[in-house]
Amino acid sequence: MSAEKDKVLGNLVRAVHILEASNAFALLVPEVRVNIVYALENASKIEDVAAIDGRITLVKGKVKAVGYPRFGASDHMARLIIEVMKYDRSYRAGINFAWSPELSNFLKSYVLDKGWEFAWIDRTKEPEEVMKVDGKSIPWKVRELLRAGHGKIPKIFYESSGWGKEPLFVLLGKDAVQVALEVVEISEAWMRVIKRR
Amino acid sequence: MSAEKDKVLGNLVRAVHILEASNAFALLVPEVRVNIVYALENASKIEDVAAIDGRITLVKGKVKAVGYPRFGASDHMARLIIEVMKYDRSYRAGINFAWSPELSNFLKSYVLDKGWEFAWIDRTKEPEEVMKVDGKSIPWKVRELLRAGHGKIPKIFYESSGWGKEPLFVLLGKDAVQVALEVVEISEAWMRVIKRR
Amino acid sequence: MSAEKDKVLGNLVRAVHILEASNAFALLVPEVRVNIVYALENASKIEDVAAIDGRITLVKGKVKAVGYPRFGASDHMARLIIEVMKYDRSYRAGINFAWSPELSNFLKSYVLDKGWEFAWIDRTKEPEEVMKVDGKSIPWKVRELLRAGHGKIPKIFYESSGWGKEPLFVLLGKDAVQVALEVVEISEAWMRVIKRR
Amino acid sequence: MSAEKDKVLGNLVRAVHILEASNAFALLVPEVRVNIVYALENASKIEDVAAIDGRITLVKGKVKAVGYPRFGASDHMARLIIEVMKYDRSYRAGINFAWSPELSNFLKSYVLDKGWEFAWIDRTKEPEEVMKVDGKSIPWKVRELLRAGHGKIPKIFYESSGWGKEPLFVLLGKDAVQVALEVVEISEAWMRVIKRR
Repeated sequence: MSAEKDKVLGNLVRAVHILEASNAFALLVPEVRVNIVYALENASKIEDVAAIDGRITLVKGKVKAVGYPRFGASDHMARLIIEVMKYDRSYRAGINFAWSPELSNFLKSYVLDKGWEFAWIDRTKEPEEVMKVDGKSIPWKVRELLRAGHGKIPKIFYESSGWGKEPLFVLLGKDAVQVALEVVEISEAWMRVIKRR
Repeated sequence: MSAEKDKVLGNLVRAVHILEASNAFALLVPEVRVNIVYALENASKIEDVAAIDGRITLVKGKVKAVGYPRFGASDHMARLIIEVMKYDRSYRAGINFAWSPELSNFLKSYVLDKGWEFAWIDRTKEPEEVMKVDGKSIPWKVRELLRAGHGKIPKIFYESSGWGKEPLFVLLGKDAVQVALEVVEISEAWMRVIKRR
Repeated sequence: MSAEKDKVLGNLVRAVHILEASNAFALLVPEVRVNIVYALENASKIEDVAAIDGRITLVKGKVKAVGYPRFGASDHMARLIIEVMKYDRSYRAGINFAWSPELSNFLKSYVLDKGWEFAWIDRTKEPEEVMKVDGKSIPWKVRELLRAGHGKIPKIFYESSGWGKEPLFVLLGKDAVQVALEVVEISEAWMRVIKRR
Repeated sequence: MSAEKDKVLGNLVRAVHILEASNAFALLVPEVRVNIVYALENASKIEDVAAIDGRITLVKGKVKAVGYPRFGASDHMARLIIEVMKYDRSYRAGINFAWSPELSNFLKSYVLDKGWEFAWIDRTKEPEEVMKVDGKSIPWKVRELLRAGHGKIPKIFYESSGWGKEPLFVLLGKDAVQVALEVVEISEAWMRVIKRR
């Protein structure tokens, strides 16, 4: 157990080094900041998922992890990955990043090249009885993802703007280093697009 | 000029020490994290307003400033205080914190005792032509505040939930230490309410 | 290789959480601050040894890791553990901490109970031709340790005061979590001694 | 009093921004790390002197303040500046940095151009009765400085290697920003020397 925990925490350390080394990734930091989660193989509760304490933010314009990786440091993203893992155990890690209509258009064609499934969750369709009950929201979202992915959880998706909620992308992968490398590649491609304008 | 800058930055340092020393203030940290701004006397642009680089967040459940105070470190809150100062030069500092319906109800009576004006900005009323044009949103908000305050900027107010926007309280004051002390007092009163439940 | 690196980095993360959670360990932070190193199994160069970037220090009197674990973040302690591993491959981690004559007396009896070997390196005996040549100092120290330990590397030892050098204890172990737990236990026992005075 | 404290803390914030922006200053960070102190005008005790909590160190090879400026955060440097101020009230700030024989030779000619007094304290001459009594060491050092400076406290000096003590330079000035700018200029000149070799 300790050895598996070490592997998860250390993989998050390497993921943070990758994100902090990227100038382009600064473009994708949302208002709520970035979190990256990585779950133990049989994760069933928040304490089985490690994340970055204080999240990842910008200081002097540079990407910076605020605290250390810690099990139980995330709530929403941790519950999301646990729910995702009920349907697809090849995913154990996820990262969120800023959504914008322009980035979204760009990513639609980007993911085609990658062969990734792309989807979104329309928060306006969330039924009121789901919103009101604690813990019902995330299962509803993952069912929506399954529907959008024709029974498969998509590799990348966004949650659209909601009432009081910032729209956000989520990228899923097998471990934290993988999603960090993939999101850095996305941000570098996106930076090239912006500079061409 | 340098002496005034030192006073502003140092006052923010003391404000951060006050916030970090409070356990109760952790209750009021929103998803977008806290920023506290303090403007030079004749502030007219973002670079004239100092704020906490990387904002103030929670690490291991404790309040923690991510970076140092720096002029130009805030965008939204900086523009808000500059706009407020056009109407009331007794305000030079502001802090934002989490809104919830319960806290809002509590604060309505709390501010009565203090003799503070309390108001809110209904983001759903923001005209589309205001939202679409960069830099029009904050002047509209401050005009709304003036209207709600019968020609006076209220000491405390919230921006209601918006499309993709978290609802947030803002507390205004003459300097950063003052708003830090006041928000810590609010958070301690609020903690006592929660514990009584 | 990546999996082994993750395990080493994550073990250091857990070690830091253990050290930061200890109030007593603050007593043992020397002027040069603490570093804790953990080497890959076949470590032969500094880049094979992970340590805490910026070391571990005190902020507001509390133990605080300055940066993240990183391979190549330590020089002296990294070269020491590599040299130690040439003689005893059961050691892969080490931590340094403050020496004082009182603590040293206390530890002499403490280690008897533990069954640990205790030794010291007398820096005044370091030959001039060793001091002058880069990279000769650490092999000399480890030979001194072997001599003091009758052919075995002692689990705990100190380097005495030197010319321009602070005296320091070093505790060796199989991994970073082990040495963190052991040094916290030492610091708590030492705190009890101090309080009794 | 609060206004004076704000000015001191804010001046230290600006000094830290200056030091962190310098790549060259990384060359001058000693094992015990850098501290920079700035005293209130009538400072008489440690709590009247502000310094950087956790000192200033290197993370990923870059200069980084560990914590915030705080009154009472320094011990040795705080007592040194208080003692200096008994003889010369134009000094209220100081910074320490790494000594080496090569840098020392370089600085001897550098300070000639600047018209600064340069001196050193020979720790080997410290009488045993001074070393043994707490609080006697710093007054002795400052008397040595006065002697070396012919009755004037020198602007820059070093404490030579001592038994268990790293040799260190100290630069004095009227405020923290001044000494930060001066030490950055020194480190940049020194970097040019090193690169020419």
